Amino acid sequence: MPTFQRHVFVCVNERPADHPKGCCKQKGGEQVRDALKKKLGERGIKSEVRANNAGCLDQCEQGVTVVVYPEQVWYGHVTVADLDELIDTHIVGGEVVERLLLPDQPHLEGRRSFGRLRLPVVS
Amino acid sequence: MPTFQRHVFVCVNERPADHPKGCCKQKGGEQVRDALKKKLGERGIKSEVRANNAGCLDQCEQGVTVVVYPEQVWYGHVTVADLDELIDTHIVGGEVVERLLLPDQPHLEGRRSFGRLRLPVVS
Repeated sequence: MPTFQRHVFVCVNERPADHPKGCCKQKGGEQVRDALKKKLGERGIKSEVRANNAGCLDQCEQGVTVVVYPEQVWYGHVTVADLDELIDTHIVGGEVVERLLLPDQPHLEGRRSFGRLRLPVVS
Repeated sequence: MPTFQRHVFVCVNERPADHPKGCCKQKGGEQVRDALKKKLGERGIKSEVRANNAGCLDQCEQGVTVVVYPEQVWYGHVTVADLDELIDTHIVGGEVVERLLLPDQPHLEGRRSFGRLRLPVVS
């Protein structure tokens, strides 16, 4: 069984092209997911972190929406260009990326720090 | 922004029909996801709990795979018939459903109890 220290879900939901909310697929969700998976692989942290696509996370206006568990930190308007910072700062570093954070996340209780990723010691 | 007390991801990944591992879609992932969403709605707990489909959770042999966050409890071989128990016992009750639990989840550190869902007081 996997034990992921962080599990990152990227919305790739598709709505009809004329839907007023838009959708994460149209806004690049699949590209973000694919690039995130690739970058996690390149950094050799795929055993510690998994990226998955998810169905609609109900934040279509804020798409591309990404949620990081177990801390349930919600990010919006994420692009491929944001991923290195998201990985370095949050996924590895454990610190929230303030500029991408969606507003109103009372469950975080103001917390912005969740602990660095623990990596195996290479001898 | 949503603040979900539990966020349940159901694998609906599809592999080619002749793939030796099979896949969660073939094993009923979409039916499980749809029924779970419907049941959460019927119980009036959609503000507290969200069900989403997820891409491959890499447990194809154990499909239909379901993972409950924030506690990261992994369940396998989940069917529509299991959902009432999964909702009553874990999603609402906060207790792990032992008979559906996938083996080897060291991150749980033996913990089986994660707290009941907090529901708004209806006056």
